[in-house]
Amino acid sequence: MTDAPRAVYALPVPGIGEIGAGDDLAAIIAGHVALEAGDVVVVTQKVVSKAEGRLVEVGTDEAAERLRIVEEQSVRILRRRGELVISETGHGFVCANAGVDFSNVEAGWAALLPVDPDRSARRIRDGLRARAGVEVAVVVSDTFGRPWRRGVTDVAIGCAGIAAVVDLRGSPDAGGRPLQATEICVADEIASAAELVMGKDRGVPVAVVRGVDPAWLRPGSVVDEIVRPPAEDLFR
Amino acid sequence: MTDAPRAVYALPVPGIGEIGAGDDLAAIIAGHVALEAGDVVVVTQKVVSKAEGRLVEVGTDEAAERLRIVEEQSVRILRRRGELVISETGHGFVCANAGVDFSNVEAGWAALLPVDPDRSARRIRDGLRARAGVEVAVVVSDTFGRPWRRGVTDVAIGCAGIAAVVDLRGSPDAGGRPLQATEICVADEIASAAELVMGKDRGVPVAVVRGVDPAWLRPGSVVDEIVRPPAEDLFR
Repeated sequence: MTDAPRAVYALPVPGIGEIGAGDDLAAIIAGHVALEAGDVVVVTQKVVSKAEGRLVEVGTDEAAERLRIVEEQSVRILRRRGELVISETGHGFVCANAGVDFSNVEAGWAALLPVDPDRSARRIRDGLRARAGVEVAVVVSDTFGRPWRRGVTDVAIGCAGIAAVVDLRGSPDAGGRPLQATEICVADEIASAAELVMGKDRGVPVAVVRGVDPAWLRPGSVVDEIVRPPAEDLFR
Repeated sequence: MTDAPRAVYALPVPGIGEIGAGDDLAAIIAGHVALEAGDVVVVTQKVVSKAEGRLVEVGTDEAAERLRIVEEQSVRILRRRGELVISETGHGFVCANAGVDFSNVEAGWAALLPVDPDRSARRIRDGLRARAGVEVAVVVSDTFGRPWRRGVTDVAIGCAGIAAVVDLRGSPDAGGRPLQATEICVADEIASAAELVMGKDRGVPVAVVRGVDPAWLRPGSVVDEIVRPPAEDLFR
């Protein structure tokens, strides 16, 4: 049985400023927020990609160049409609334009996804432990669409120090019967909660989610826990 | 330009207890939490369905009965695998088992989705205004899977007093260029944030999300804003 529920807070971390290749994100974050043990630090993919130098130049024939970059970043194209490409990335993410970002990047450049976003999260977590002296969890977030729902939401593409999916199978429901839908993707829910204080047009690329269930704080991996293998997939 | 970002809080509302057909959810919620203007009250589908008497009896041949109920609640079956059915409901939601819930319901009964979850949200909102004397928003949440990501997350199936999708098209990004992915499904993100304090096995069917951007507080509808029409759909 879990402890009585407590409040969860999503706290924006303003003042991060522009991030460039080679910047030490952990040091920058630690300089802008007082972290507490058990906090989940949510960092958007874009600043992680910038810090890791995952930028490519977009040539002058912009539409063709965009398509070329998206195809290079895809292992499988699922659907096309107009300029929209839904594809699978090398990580196994299914998303629009292979996660390549053309906005909030210097004109003429695009930001690719991190090579290994779980590793990116671990690196930031290690840096925060060294800089701030606390054990926190880290989620790297990105903005994905959904096939049957309009609007985008933020999801986790990498995590460290927190479960991506919490398995409640075997736990009885409030009436004592086995639960039906019981594998909860807490990493995605945390990314979504963080987005509520980031706001795409406000330039807040980092938020802290405080107060999550301590039972969730264990080694985690988005690629291992969330990415659905093609064999399980009914819609690829 | 939006105001400086502020913190968002997800506060569990414990003590709600069992809900039965005809119960006045707004009165019960108002009796268990001190609401503030601008709060978003998130109520899980299950208690809304129970209060609205959306329960059906499951006959003794349980597997066949479940399938019969799911098919009755579907307008289109998209995929089947074993006992899992992915279908479209009359509302236009694409989800597992047409949203029919067999857990956290009295043995021998199943809970159907509300007939019109936006209307359910409006009714609760009107009741809270009458009972608590404050203007709040309401989101009715449910737990859905995703085709390419393991684990479930909570999403909005109805809303009132808050935008389902916030359109940032036309707003410049932090660098002044037009944004790429700009229609943010804040109702789903709020439902996910609320789930972090509900926990499926803890029997907390209501949470308050406090501190959301006041610009989002306007009439909203999940069916009108989130449900993607089949003509736009690449995966049906």
